[in-house]
Amino acid sequence: MAIYKGPTEDVLFLLDDVLRIGRYDNLPGFTDAAPDIRRAILEEASKFCEQVLTPLNRTGDAEGCARHPDGRVTTPNGFKEAFRQYGDGGWMGISAPVEFGGQGLPETLTVAVNEMMTSANMAFSMYAGLTQGALAALIVHGTPEQKATYVPKMVAGRWTGTMNLTEPHCGTDLGLLRTRATPQGDGSYRLTGSKIFISGGEHDLSENIVHLVLARIEGAQPGIRGVSLFVVPKILPAADGSLGRRNSVACGAIEEKMGIHGNATCVMNYDGAIGWLVGEENRGINAMFTMMNGARLAVGVQGLALSEVAYQNAAAYAKDRLQGRALMGARFPDKVADPIIVHPDVRRALMTIRAFNESARALVLWTALQGDIAHRSPDDKARQAADDHMGLFTPVIKGVLTDIGFANTVVAQQVYGGHGYIAEHGMEQFVRDSRIAMMYEGTNGIQALDLVGRKLPKDGGRASQAFFGEVAAYLKAKSADEATNGIQALDLVGRKLPKDGGRASQAFFGEVAAYLKAKSADEAMKRYVAPLAGALGDLQRATMWLAQNAPAAPDNAGAAATDYMHLFGLVGLGYMWCRIAEAAQAKLSNGDGDAERMKAKLVTARFFMERMLPESGAHLARIQSGAASVMELPADEF
Amino acid sequence: MAIYKGPTEDVLFLLDDVLRIGRYDNLPGFTDAAPDIRRAILEEASKFCEQVLTPLNRTGDAEGCARHPDGRVTTPNGFKEAFRQYGDGGWMGISAPVEFGGQGLPETLTVAVNEMMTSANMAFSMYAGLTQGALAALIVHGTPEQKATYVPKMVAGRWTGTMNLTEPHCGTDLGLLRTRATPQGDGSYRLTGSKIFISGGEHDLSENIVHLVLARIEGAQPGIRGVSLFVVPKILPAADGSLGRRNSVACGAIEEKMGIHGNATCVMNYDGAIGWLVGEENRGINAMFTMMNGARLAVGVQGLALSEVAYQNAAAYAKDRLQGRALMGARFPDKVADPIIVHPDVRRALMTIRAFNESARALVLWTALQGDIAHRSPDDKARQAADDHMGLFTPVIKGVLTDIGFANTVVAQQVYGGHGYIAEHGMEQFVRDSRIAMMYEGTNGIQALDLVGRKLPKDGGRASQAFFGEVAAYLKAKSADEATNGIQALDLVGRKLPKDGGRASQAFFGEVAAYLKAKSADEAMKRYVAPLAGALGDLQRATMWLAQNAPAAPDNAGAAATDYMHLFGLVGLGYMWCRIAEAAQAKLSNGDGDAERMKAKLVTARFFMERMLPESGAHLARIQSGAASVMELPADEF
Repeated sequence: MAIYKGPTEDVLFLLDDVLRIGRYDNLPGFTDAAPDIRRAILEEASKFCEQVLTPLNRTGDAEGCARHPDGRVTTPNGFKEAFRQYGDGGWMGISAPVEFGGQGLPETLTVAVNEMMTSANMAFSMYAGLTQGALAALIVHGTPEQKATYVPKMVAGRWTGTMNLTEPHCGTDLGLLRTRATPQGDGSYRLTGSKIFISGGEHDLSENIVHLVLARIEGAQPGIRGVSLFVVPKILPAADGSLGRRNSVACGAIEEKMGIHGNATCVMNYDGAIGWLVGEENRGINAMFTMMNGARLAVGVQGLALSEVAYQNAAAYAKDRLQGRALMGARFPDKVADPIIVHPDVRRALMTIRAFNESARALVLWTALQGDIAHRSPDDKARQAADDHMGLFTPVIKGVLTDIGFANTVVAQQVYGGHGYIAEHGMEQFVRDSRIAMMYEGTNGIQALDLVGRKLPKDGGRASQAFFGEVAAYLKAKSADEATNGIQALDLVGRKLPKDGGRASQAFFGEVAAYLKAKSADEAMKRYVAPLAGALGDLQRATMWLAQNAPAAPDNAGAAATDYMHLFGLVGLGYMWCRIAEAAQAKLSNGDGDAERMKAKLVTARFFMERMLPESGAHLARIQSGAASVMELPADEF
Repeated sequence: MAIYKGPTEDVLFLLDDVLRIGRYDNLPGFTDAAPDIRRAILEEASKFCEQVLTPLNRTGDAEGCARHPDGRVTTPNGFKEAFRQYGDGGWMGISAPVEFGGQGLPETLTVAVNEMMTSANMAFSMYAGLTQGALAALIVHGTPEQKATYVPKMVAGRWTGTMNLTEPHCGTDLGLLRTRATPQGDGSYRLTGSKIFISGGEHDLSENIVHLVLARIEGAQPGIRGVSLFVVPKILPAADGSLGRRNSVACGAIEEKMGIHGNATCVMNYDGAIGWLVGEENRGINAMFTMMNGARLAVGVQGLALSEVAYQNAAAYAKDRLQGRALMGARFPDKVADPIIVHPDVRRALMTIRAFNESARALVLWTALQGDIAHRSPDDKARQAADDHMGLFTPVIKGVLTDIGFANTVVAQQVYGGHGYIAEHGMEQFVRDSRIAMMYEGTNGIQALDLVGRKLPKDGGRASQAFFGEVAAYLKAKSADEATNGIQALDLVGRKLPKDGGRASQAFFGEVAAYLKAKSADEAMKRYVAPLAGALGDLQRATMWLAQNAPAAPDNAGAAATDYMHLFGLVGLGYMWCRIAEAAQAKLSNGDGDAERMKAKLVTARFFMERMLPESGAHLARIQSGAASVMELPADEF
């Protein structure tokens, strides 16, 4: 069976030493999350994962969910009891407002806990995750009455939530949706239509299920501007808040799918079901995006979470499995063979995953912290900057972390050889489960377009300029100007080199080369900072290329989007590695903390710079090749 | 349900126009494979795939194989009848010797047919594929009596074959194997031990199953030099060749696995089973490698085959699914939305798969043709050169085609959005099925080590030098020396630039740049040849780096192996694209054949050069970073 242990120490290192969360003690809820509280919560979460959720992961996959003739859906054995413990443990509402029964702690902590729950059991954790998303939408857009009716019960884990967007003929293009809502004159509506791919649409974990449903009010205009959001409970609450009669919404079928078998993916049929408007008429998409942005971040975390648990298992197997001998000579001559971790190609696989996981976690926590600032800071400018960051990084985290996270589950499975293909080890389940994260909540292609077409140009590029500026300033501060010179040099290659036969740039190259040589001996951060400067240069050139080539021909943006997103992600992860390396060096010189773990950070940072960051050049080349070879073929020739 | 159509026209174009198979009419069997015969065989194969195998693919996956209490194993509904048709149609023995009932046609044709069968139904085609592998070993290493007993029945498809290598504690490291063979004094042996992961170890498709089993003769030395190969039939043949009594070999269990559910992956228990030595004592590994090399090529073809069928389905879906509008304005304003093939990111996905498939097919057929030459040419030198090519390209094809082929099934699945996750469309099955190809017949990490550690240095590097020389000569011929200059220029960057402050190289760069500029207008092949020259330069630099850095520190080879293999594969595929583009240009100027299809080849070649080949630089950077960051972390820190 697969093993799992929550990365408590790594989360605390990132929060305390890299992101220096202590700086934000003035924000509401942050003082309540003192260091000892944070540790206690993370340790408890890890324990819950190890003892309760992990053992249910493989059995949940094998058993799956069942729809019974009467329309009831049952979850795998053990899920119900585990969900009760989850609710009773207060996990749903760590960051929910105190007035509704939550603990009001930073969202950053919820995100860290959710990574663990997802690693341990993704299918299970989705029931909770969707509920947290629905909670977010209700808290922001619900009426006081709606909040009072639904929120406390959901925070307690007694009721769960869902998102109902997709219909058979429309997923990405929600403007095509057909589910209609007929006003009843008493403030309620009757909803009729069919929704598909509804995670947790029906199940036996909670007393009630609160569906948030996109539908078109009768007479509203076609397209996305005629879509509204409704709350449609499975069981209608009575006036006293108790459960009343059954609403006319039912699960028509459970999808047979590749993975996350423990989560019921339902076709939901609304047959004149009673619902109430959430937020404004015809502004359903806006209300939905409140939960969507959180959901996209959560899905990005799923990519990280599955990569992490896959890594832990592959590392354990690599240390245990005896096969072959080290290339440099037997390491354990007394055994029949060496453990396969002696082989460079096995280590390459493990280091690849690890170099992603640790920086992806940093990126996630950094962004979650920005989310907390955006929601809780009293300072307008800080809130705006944090909100910019959130908007910019949401598609990057969703798209990049799920693409690489999935790829890493495949890499981890590969460490097992043929055994990785066998269900009992659990590695193939991580591959199957993580695969969905690249598709739902907007395919990763959509995330890339969101980044390139919307987030990048938004507000005159304010968010991306801020990020580029932050990284450039960091590089400058850390490398005595050398990295910034590197950036300028790279920038010159793209822009100035052809001018005057390259005379000016040749002179400058000589100067920079001499400078780099002089500096190279004494800069502890050089080996991390210099490669990042190169990648940032690639990103800036890609950005400039887009600015010059996309407005007149948007296909150039479309053809570049996925590569741009990944290039952006590389720079984001590389920046995290620089900051991690810096914090690790500081702790090593202070003799503070686990020296072996800090040294491992430095090795892994180097691996990232040497073996993952070089991909930036290939991304740039693809971006700069433009749309021609992508768009030229007539559709009939495909 | 998934669709499939055999790529008959593409195979014929590659054989006739790119590889010019007509040149080999002097080889035995080749005259029998005249152009009309080749077409007829491929069209028949395609029809069999479409009508018989494709419909059984999804049902076979859903139903799987079952082991019954009496040890019998049944395959999914319809497999038995389909396998009878396969045998009766003569598909097993297209290339088998005529004396044993085969048709004696080129192996190249078998490989083309096997691609189709695998696309249509990988789980099914494995029963036949393993039989072909066992046939190859028996024909080369079997005694005349063994051949007479087994080969004709296997060629007829009445008996099937298996390979028994893996044991629970040993896969890659076969020297550890424990199955033992006790001589009985009458030339027979009794085998005892347990084998795992035996594809088609037990089933209901054939009258008998011929197991080829690696075991250690009692008293033989430990390690790989004490291992011999045995033939162990499920049912012992009587003296007259009819079926006699049951041998004591039985299926102990069927593995529960990620995919290829229609193929029975068995635990096989040998309990004093009667067997006979195949080939020499203690040389079992050599005999096994006769089937292994063919099997590795066949597994590479599986990567291509699944990528092809996944592509066909994704392309059909992209042309059919209406969602969103083209970035440059609605393309079908009368429809509710445009088909998603208008979106650059969807096209990028499809082009990525296609640019691989068509060149991978060329590489496979080229290599299969070399296999035919190696086995059938009367010319010693031609045989040796062809054998060198086979040895060199076998790990590349196995490793690269299965890595990219699998990745492409994921890309194709992504085109479906969330629908790709649902079993009914069949896309997730392609992902699950193709995944095994990266692991069995030696994991791709092992292929990479085989390439770098064995095939590259073999015979003083004769095979790789021959390949590099061929590509360089081709580039030179096609580009009036320009590409070769490009290679030299790139070589200089790596080796000579630092000398004398770079003065000599600066002068040379200016010269090359002027030359390139002068030539760029008139060279039809330039846009294909120049990028390939760059990638070949990367590959040569990587090769030189290995030559300089691996002998003293083998970990440098181990840490570079996977990247080197993929860089090698890129150059191989790029070379195929140049030759495809050249053939397509010739047909276009002759007005010969389907002009639209030939134009599509040119577009796809360009896409490959612009969007896939840039990866070569990243591979080189990783290779040159060496083993340090890969090997430094103490094992306990993983």
